[in-house]
Amino acid sequence: MGLRVTVWNEFVHEQTNDFVRTIYPDGIHEQIASHLRSQSDFEVRTATLEQSDHGLTPEVLESTDVLMWWGHAAHEKVNNEIVDRVQERVLAGMGLIVMHSSHYSKIFKRLMGTSCALCWREAAERERLWVVSPNHPITQGCGRYIEIPHAEMYGEFFDIPDPDELLFVSWFEGGEVFRSGAVWHRGRGRVFYFRPGHETYPIFYHPGVLQVLTNGVRWCAYHGNDEVIGVGKALNQKEPFEKIGPKDYVVGALRHPPTFNPGDR
Amino acid sequence: MGLRVTVWNEFVHEQTNDFVRTIYPDGIHEQIASHLRSQSDFEVRTATLEQSDHGLTPEVLESTDVLMWWGHAAHEKVNNEIVDRVQERVLAGMGLIVMHSSHYSKIFKRLMGTSCALCWREAAERERLWVVSPNHPITQGCGRYIEIPHAEMYGEFFDIPDPDELLFVSWFEGGEVFRSGAVWHRGRGRVFYFRPGHETYPIFYHPGVLQVLTNGVRWCAYHGNDEVIGVGKALNQKEPFEKIGPKDYVVGALRHPPTFNPGDR
Amino acid sequence: MGLRVTVWNEFVHEQTNDFVRTIYPDGIHEQIASHLRSQSDFEVRTATLEQSDHGLTPEVLESTDVLMWWGHAAHEKVNNEIVDRVQERVLAGMGLIVMHSSHYSKIFKRLMGTSCALCWREAAERERLWVVSPNHPITQGCGRYIEIPHAEMYGEFFDIPDPDELLFVSWFEGGEVFRSGAVWHRGRGRVFYFRPGHETYPIFYHPGVLQVLTNGVRWCAYHGNDEVIGVGKALNQKEPFEKIGPKDYVVGALRHPPTFNPGDR
Amino acid sequence: MGLRVTVWNEFVHEQTNDFVRTIYPDGIHEQIASHLRSQSDFEVRTATLEQSDHGLTPEVLESTDVLMWWGHAAHEKVNNEIVDRVQERVLAGMGLIVMHSSHYSKIFKRLMGTSCALCWREAAERERLWVVSPNHPITQGCGRYIEIPHAEMYGEFFDIPDPDELLFVSWFEGGEVFRSGAVWHRGRGRVFYFRPGHETYPIFYHPGVLQVLTNGVRWCAYHGNDEVIGVGKALNQKEPFEKIGPKDYVVGALRHPPTFNPGDR
Repeated sequence: MGLRVTVWNEFVHEQTNDFVRTIYPDGIHEQIASHLRSQSDFEVRTATLEQSDHGLTPEVLESTDVLMWWGHAAHEKVNNEIVDRVQERVLAGMGLIVMHSSHYSKIFKRLMGTSCALCWREAAERERLWVVSPNHPITQGCGRYIEIPHAEMYGEFFDIPDPDELLFVSWFEGGEVFRSGAVWHRGRGRVFYFRPGHETYPIFYHPGVLQVLTNGVRWCAYHGNDEVIGVGKALNQKEPFEKIGPKDYVVGALRHPPTFNPGDR
Repeated sequence: MGLRVTVWNEFVHEQTNDFVRTIYPDGIHEQIASHLRSQSDFEVRTATLEQSDHGLTPEVLESTDVLMWWGHAAHEKVNNEIVDRVQERVLAGMGLIVMHSSHYSKIFKRLMGTSCALCWREAAERERLWVVSPNHPITQGCGRYIEIPHAEMYGEFFDIPDPDELLFVSWFEGGEVFRSGAVWHRGRGRVFYFRPGHETYPIFYHPGVLQVLTNGVRWCAYHGNDEVIGVGKALNQKEPFEKIGPKDYVVGALRHPPTFNPGDR
Repeated sequence: MGLRVTVWNEFVHEQTNDFVRTIYPDGIHEQIASHLRSQSDFEVRTATLEQSDHGLTPEVLESTDVLMWWGHAAHEKVNNEIVDRVQERVLAGMGLIVMHSSHYSKIFKRLMGTSCALCWREAAERERLWVVSPNHPITQGCGRYIEIPHAEMYGEFFDIPDPDELLFVSWFEGGEVFRSGAVWHRGRGRVFYFRPGHETYPIFYHPGVLQVLTNGVRWCAYHGNDEVIGVGKALNQKEPFEKIGPKDYVVGALRHPPTFNPGDR
Repeated sequence: MGLRVTVWNEFVHEQTNDFVRTIYPDGIHEQIASHLRSQSDFEVRTATLEQSDHGLTPEVLESTDVLMWWGHAAHEKVNNEIVDRVQERVLAGMGLIVMHSSHYSKIFKRLMGTSCALCWREAAERERLWVVSPNHPITQGCGRYIEIPHAEMYGEFFDIPDPDELLFVSWFEGGEVFRSGAVWHRGRGRVFYFRPGHETYPIFYHPGVLQVLTNGVRWCAYHGNDEVIGVGKALNQKEPFEKIGPKDYVVGALRHPPTFNPGDR
């Protein structure tokens, strides 16, 4: 069985903006999916906001190893119930790749716990993504850096939790830097944020960007050790592993405070 | 001006259970607050679920440096609007100490992005919290470990993001271990989870536990660099810091895909 | 080409102690190697202290993807020149698995930068290694924990740098805990420390321990992005990527201190 | 008692190069020390390579809370014995601030375990250090970034272990980025690497740089929990905390391999 990828796109700009359509005539999701389909072991589907359940039914999620997310204009139109469902699947082991403006998606903010705000500028400036983690498989095949001739700028401070690993740092022509590639574990799942991409630039045709996304799918696909208990649901482990000695403490009959002396630790 | 602490308690068990009341006659919050008041530079208040806004009005939060949270039976009764408000204040720099069963509070789950589930057992067993981070101020004055004679057990797997620093690991008589003390940064705020405490044990009279909580207040009180932009709100940085060169790219007139060659990075 | 593993053993106890020889008649290295050989894609060699260059010639290291290290009584007999050579290979991308008492080996201390000291007791007590990172491939197939009936105890504080990921935490019958499985990146290489194992216990016959070591070999074998410059050797990047503007500063003719005003940042 | 700082400088360029002397007539150490002396609670000393024991006698180190290190041309002239001594003191709780070209000092490489190599260029270009950790006291008072008009460039990849916290990322005019401020724990001590500074630029007069160094001294001065055992020296904890049950295992009389079944974990 192949590695099952679902590419999700809000699919708004491409239907409302002529210029965007000249770059991504079938939508950003189709451009990404068409590249991923070149990998013989990937099984690639797409899903969009306008579909029933935004295309993310329990069945689709259950049969997805890695979900890729692209949103920009319609974050607020994503139903909270679907966000709950995606979060639950990530914690259970589904990988999630969050692209560019999806830093502000409900699902990313949900998994990070922060505002995920940042600074930005639209000036078609040059970006160079430097590899700072040559040890990570996601950076394989990228050389020392990826150069993007025209890009929207994202600058620090980027309000995310400290990444579990920082992979790329961007240099921008206008003077800013940005933590452009980073990963986090959440439950049994893996989350990868990757900055490049914007609807008005052909960035999802860039070989280096596509290489990183392909690497990202492979890395995020790991499902985790599913024998481990305690992900998503508390367990009452009534039986101890070891014999617990007799106690002078009985609930309801404890001698009362304080039972400690000042020097106790 | 002192360091302003607000101790929040759902205050349910102490009003409904006689045995709990023998241990914490004025509530867990009052026991903790009364200890913290021994620190001359602390200004300590309490707040409870039953109060208007759960006692956490914008004014109270705005004048709180560190919020301590104790919940167990009534997590679902906390209004989402108040959770939003607390989260926003943490990101803006308020410290948060999350105690024991509050691992399942809405605010902790919100800030972590995970289920925060764990394994547990109620058997009045011995716990020993080992210091694994002697370099952290929160562990100061605790010796090598803190020993608690009777405790509810919490065991791994504890579904939290990898801590920014792991401070304590618990040994339990029944055979489990648990990451009992850990810290995370969120925005400009600091979050400290500390495991000990249960309404049926006099754990909040334990000198070692009280020492750690006092240390925790001091450590979480740091407000962060409030000149940094991008926490909580995106910024459109229209003016670049550096001159951006002339571009052959103009939005709406870009030569169309692909603009990249296979060898490009 | 298979994954090339070299199992290194100081091979002292097995030649000097009859009881140890009844457990590991051909040496700990041969017991581990014989198990790893069951993996069809592994090519397994061994090397020992008494060999020329301790069996770790440049050719052997150059053709090793993962080096496993077992030392206890003879750490000081390992030549510094060989330690230099191993360190250089790890930074260049060779994986390293450090087992049990090798926490005190020269190569581990070299790569960690700390004393790597710990607390210990020899009392044939029960150990239970709990998985705290269900997301890591090294924990795959281990269930929730690994139980070892008789083991030497290692207890905290373990003087290591904060792990890049903490995988296992041990519970010991005598009352201690220990961070028993942890990984670090060093240059392009990966380092995995795994606690179990002692020459007087048949721990390297334990299916769970062998599973983790096999997983460890696979995980540590990743070579890193070898196009990245700056590992092991500084680079003078004389040509800038971007045009650097004309400066009023010329070395040797700078207007002299201070060139800054108090309000400057 | 004040916070005791020792500023160490190899003090070579300032004695051999006229231009450097016009910027730092009394040496870089004196310029830094003179600023730190403005803090009323700091007690500041200096030490240099040419002094006996490089000025770092056991007595000096024992009475130093934070050591600042500046080296460039004479790393190899530092005696290994002194490096051992400094490392031991860091593990025991002394803070260490490593500045600029000292990334290649013996003590920094010793504590990191990596090559600490990087890319560099001498072109008097503009540098902007962006704060990426607004939550860290070292970034307090720095605004969003520090701008340095003329600087030597340091670029990625910087071969260091993943920082425990990343504080600053630099943007360079010539197109590179660099992790310019980062901290690590080692034993009970704290290590802070800060990039700015070069003998041919008046960077140690820059108010933002001096602010960070002052913050760094305060942060690194924390001594750690010195009751914790296991830093620097192993401990044989003969007496268990808990009773260890009777064993069928006796060293020298164990039934021999394997004692495990394939299904065991």
